[in-house]
Amino acid sequence: VEAGRRSHWGWGHDAARPSGDALDGLAGLLSARFGEPATVRAPVPLEDVELPPSRVAPPSSLARLCRADPYERCLHHYGRSFRDVLRGSRGEFPHPPDLVAYPETEEDVVALLEWCSQAGIAALPYGGGSSVVGGVEPLVGDGFRGVVTLDLSRLAGVVELDRRSLAARVRAGTFGPALEDALRREGLTFRHFPQSFEFSTVGGWIATRSGGHFATRYTHVDDLLEAVRLVGPAGVLETRRVPASGAGPAPERLVLGSEGALGVVTEAWLRVRPRPDARARATLRFGSVERAVEAVRALAQSGLEPANCRLLDPAEALVGGAGDGSTAVVLVGFEAAGRPVGALLDAALEVVADHGAVVAEREVLDPPARAASGTALVTDSGSAGAPGAAPSGGGGGGAGPAGAAEAWRRSFLGAPYVRDALVLCGAVCETFETAVTWDRFEALDEAVRQAAAAAFAEATGGRGSVTCRFTHVYPDGPAPYYTVVAPGRAGAELEQWQVVKEACSDALLAAGGTITHHHAVGRDHLRWYLAERPPAFGAVLAAAKKLLDPAGVCNPGVLVPLA
Amino acid sequence: VEAGRRSHWGWGHDAARPSGDALDGLAGLLSARFGEPATVRAPVPLEDVELPPSRVAPPSSLARLCRADPYERCLHHYGRSFRDVLRGSRGEFPHPPDLVAYPETEEDVVALLEWCSQAGIAALPYGGGSSVVGGVEPLVGDGFRGVVTLDLSRLAGVVELDRRSLAARVRAGTFGPALEDALRREGLTFRHFPQSFEFSTVGGWIATRSGGHFATRYTHVDDLLEAVRLVGPAGVLETRRVPASGAGPAPERLVLGSEGALGVVTEAWLRVRPRPDARARATLRFGSVERAVEAVRALAQSGLEPANCRLLDPAEALVGGAGDGSTAVVLVGFEAAGRPVGALLDAALEVVADHGAVVAEREVLDPPARAASGTALVTDSGSAGAPGAAPSGGGGGGAGPAGAAEAWRRSFLGAPYVRDALVLCGAVCETFETAVTWDRFEALDEAVRQAAAAAFAEATGGRGSVTCRFTHVYPDGPAPYYTVVAPGRAGAELEQWQVVKEACSDALLAAGGTITHHHAVGRDHLRWYLAERPPAFGAVLAAAKKLLDPAGVCNPGVLVPLA
Repeated sequence: VEAGRRSHWGWGHDAARPSGDALDGLAGLLSARFGEPATVRAPVPLEDVELPPSRVAPPSSLARLCRADPYERCLHHYGRSFRDVLRGSRGEFPHPPDLVAYPETEEDVVALLEWCSQAGIAALPYGGGSSVVGGVEPLVGDGFRGVVTLDLSRLAGVVELDRRSLAARVRAGTFGPALEDALRREGLTFRHFPQSFEFSTVGGWIATRSGGHFATRYTHVDDLLEAVRLVGPAGVLETRRVPASGAGPAPERLVLGSEGALGVVTEAWLRVRPRPDARARATLRFGSVERAVEAVRALAQSGLEPANCRLLDPAEALVGGAGDGSTAVVLVGFEAAGRPVGALLDAALEVVADHGAVVAEREVLDPPARAASGTALVTDSGSAGAPGAAPSGGGGGGAGPAGAAEAWRRSFLGAPYVRDALVLCGAVCETFETAVTWDRFEALDEAVRQAAAAAFAEATGGRGSVTCRFTHVYPDGPAPYYTVVAPGRAGAELEQWQVVKEACSDALLAAGGTITHHHAVGRDHLRWYLAERPPAFGAVLAAAKKLLDPAGVCNPGVLVPLA
Repeated sequence: VEAGRRSHWGWGHDAARPSGDALDGLAGLLSARFGEPATVRAPVPLEDVELPPSRVAPPSSLARLCRADPYERCLHHYGRSFRDVLRGSRGEFPHPPDLVAYPETEEDVVALLEWCSQAGIAALPYGGGSSVVGGVEPLVGDGFRGVVTLDLSRLAGVVELDRRSLAARVRAGTFGPALEDALRREGLTFRHFPQSFEFSTVGGWIATRSGGHFATRYTHVDDLLEAVRLVGPAGVLETRRVPASGAGPAPERLVLGSEGALGVVTEAWLRVRPRPDARARATLRFGSVERAVEAVRALAQSGLEPANCRLLDPAEALVGGAGDGSTAVVLVGFEAAGRPVGALLDAALEVVADHGAVVAEREVLDPPARAASGTALVTDSGSAGAPGAAPSGGGGGGAGPAGAAEAWRRSFLGAPYVRDALVLCGAVCETFETAVTWDRFEALDEAVRQAAAAAFAEATGGRGSVTCRFTHVYPDGPAPYYTVVAPGRAGAELEQWQVVKEACSDALLAAGGTITHHHAVGRDHLRWYLAERPPAFGAVLAAAKKLLDPAGVCNPGVLVPLA
C-alpha cells in the first residue's frame, strides 16, 4: 500500500475518516436520534475484493499508460455517492473498468479515444472521481467489448498565465489544491471551491458545471471559464479566447455540463483574480424559517451580492454547530481584494433588520491600509461563515480569524468523511439539491418533506430526518439543499435508499425545481433529467454526440440514453 | 401615409432625423473634416420605388395576417446597417419579402411556419428590424419559392409578473419602451438598454444576444433570461423556469444567439428588478490613451463593477461632446436601488488615481432616505455618463439631473439618426465592435487602425477617420467599438464600404478579437463567423437546424451557410 494513496472505496484518504471512538460515538448519536441500535461495520479490505478479469488489453503503443491492478480498478469503479460508498465498503465491485489509462498528453487522449472507438470499447473520462451521481461508473450496457477509464490526473498543471488579462491556461487534470497553490504564488486565486475541492479537477468542474461554495455571483465554473478545449473521437472543439462574444450561440456552453458524453476536456483558460484580503461576516438568528427565507430573499434581491448567504433551518444549524436547534440561522459574508467590505455588511444587516434578524455575531476584517470600519468586533471560533477563507489550502493567506476559518474549512471539506462514517454505521443518506423560483419554494419544501416522510414510512420504519439549507441564492430563487438521513436495515440499505431517492426526486421535479443545481446528471439522475430537459434539446445533444463521438464510446449512457 | 409610422428606408421615424439646416450643417462639417465637398442627397420617396411582384399568396386561413403593400415590403426589406440605409435611401429594393405576416398568437406562428415549410418558402423572423448585420434581409439563395417575413410586433405584451421572484413573462414582439412602461408601473425595470432600444424587441434581443449599454455585470440579455420558448417548424423548445441548473449543457444558451435560424422565439421569462434610485458618476481625463486603458483595466479588475465605464479616445470624446479632443476621457458611473453608491464612486476614483486620472466632474445622487455622501457636487448638462437614467422613457423616475440624463438619452438613442444623415451627406460609415483580452488589445487596436488606413488609401482617396471607445469592460478584456467615417464617391459607396469592412474585419479577427461582441452575425459577418467558430460547433448547429427546421426555411443563410 502506497503511503497516502486514496481510499479504494470511500472519500479521500482512509486515515482522515473518523474511526475508533469517533466512529462509535457517531453510531451512538444515530442510535439516540432514531431509537434503533446502530452498529459499526468495517469496510472490506482491498485484498478481500474479488474482481472479474479484465476483458481488454491495450495495444502495445498505449500499454505504458494503462494499469489493471485491483487497486486501480476498484478506485475507478465508483464515484463517491452514498450508493458508491456503501457498495465499495461492502467489497462489491462487480463491473470495474477493464483498464485504467493515465494519459500524459493530449496526444495520449487522442490515441486512447481512437483505439476505443475502433475497438468498440467505452471510454470514461475521470477527473477526481468525486461524482455523486454515477457519472464515472462503468454501467454502459452490453454494446461494448470493455471499459477503459481515462484518469486525467497526469494531464495537469498551470501551463500559461496572462497576468494582464487575469487568465490562466490550465490542464484539465489539475486538482483544486494544486491549482490554488500555483496561483497563490502569484497572489492570485481561481476562487472556486466546490465541496469536492480537494479531490476534484478543473476538467471535472467544467464537465459537470460545478458550483463553488460562494452564494452569489462568480461561483459557478460556467462564469469563470474564458475558453475550453474538448477532444472527441472525431475531432477537437476549441473555443476562442475572448472576454465575451455575441457571435451565435455560445459554443463553450455546449462543453459546460457535457459530462464526458461528447469527449474529454483537456484544458481551459480560467479567469483568475487577486486574492481577497478583506472579509466581513455575520451570523443571524430568526424566530421562524419563514422569516429567514424572506430575509434571504430580500438580500438576494438587494443587489449586494454577498459572497456567503447561507440559510440553515433549525435542524441543519444544530447539526452544523451554528445554532441550538431552536432557530433558523443565516450566515452572511462579504469579501474583496484591496477594499473594505464592512459597509457592505452594514447594508446587508439593514436589509435583514426588517425581517426580524437578530445579529448573533458580527466580524469585520478589512485590509489594514485602507480600512474604513475595520475593527474585529466579535471573534468567534466555532461556527461557519467566513467565506473566502474557507479552503485556502496550506498557506492560508489573507485576513480572517485562523481558528474560525480553519474550523469551517475542516467542517466543509470534511463533511464527505462524516457521510462515509454514517454509511459504516448503517445509515441511509442522500442529499437533494435543486433551485426553484421564490414563488414556488414553500410548496417545493413542503412537497420534499412530505415525500421523504412517506418514503420513511415505506422503507425505514417511519424513522428519518430531513434538514435544509440554501447553498446559493439568486434574485429569482434559492438553491435549497436537503440532507436526508435514516436508519438502515443491514443488507437492505440500497433498496431503502432507492425509495427515498425516487420519492424526493419526483417531488422536486413536480414542484418546479431542477433535478440538479450543481451535482450534475450522471447515471443516477438520468430519468429526471429526461423529464426536465426540453425534448428538442435532447435531440440536439444526441446529434452533437453523433458528430463528436460517432462510435458512441464516450461515457455511454450519460446525457444521451443508451440505445 | 399613417401618422408616426416608421421610415421605410431609415432609422425610426423620418420626422426625428436631422433635416434642413441641420443636415446642411452636417454636410459642412464633413466637407471641413475631409476636404471634399459634401452634398446632401434626398431619399427616394416610397411612391417612386419599383418593387418586383410578390411571388406567393397566403392560404386563405392565413390571409388575415398577411400584407403585401409596398410600404410593408420596403420596411421589411432591410435592417438598418449602413448598406441598408444607403440602398433604401436610393430607392433600391430589389428582393423584398413577398409577404409580411403579423402573427398575433403562437398558434399563428406555428401555422405560418408549417405553411412555409410545406410550400418551400423562406420564413424570416423580424422583431424591430434594427439589425446592422443583414439579419433580416431576404437574401436566401435560389432554393425557395418566396420569402415571408414574420413581423412579431403583434405578439406583444407582459403577460405575467411574478413579483416574489422578480420575473416577468413577456411575449417576444414587445418593444423596449413598451416593456419598460409596463414594468415602471410596478416600480420595476428590465434595465436592458441596447442602442436600438426604441426599435427592437425582446425576441430580437434574445435571438441576437444583445448587449445593453451598461459596461459590466447584468448587461447582456444572456444573463437576464430565466427561461425561453422557441417555436421551430418541427416543434417547440421551451426551457424550464428555474433560477439556475446544472443539468447538462444549458438549453437556453442554444436559443440565445440563434438569430432565427432554429425558429421563432415567441416568449420568455425575464429577470426584472427594482428601479435604481441612487446614482453617482464622474468624468475623468487622461494625458494619454495608454494611461486611460490601464486605468480602465484596473477598474474592470477591481471588483467594483461600475454600471458605466466608458473609455473614449480623444477623437471620440470630441465627437460626443465629452472632451475637447486633446485627452482621452473615461466616464464612470454606479447605480443602485435603495442604497447609496457614492462610496463606490470614491473607491473607483481611488483605483484610477494611480493612473493619472484627472477628475473633471463628479456627481452623487444618493436616495434621500439613506443618503451617506449624497450631495450633488457638480451638475453638468452636456456630456454622457449618467447610466441608469438614460433611456428611462417618458416618465423619467428616480434621481438624476434631468438635463444631463435627457441630453445623454437623446444623444444615445439618436445616434442612428445621425448615422442616416451622414449617409444622405454621402459619407461611408461603419462600426466595428469586438472583445479581446487585455494582453492583445494594443496590437488589435493598431491592426484595426492600420487596416482602416490601408482601406482609405485604396478606396477613399486616403481620407477617413477612425475613433474608438470601450462599450463594455470585463476583468479579462475590453469590448472596443470603432467608428469609421470616410467621404464617399456618389454611386460608389457600397464598394468603398466593402473595402473598409473587409480590411477591418480581417484585422479584428487576426488580432484575436471576435467578429461581434453584440451586433450578431447575420449575413454580413458570416464569413468571419465561420472562421471564428469552432468547426465542430458549426456542425452541431447545422444538426440542430435540421432537427428543428427540417425544411431549412427559417432565416436561411444565417449561422448555417446555404447549401
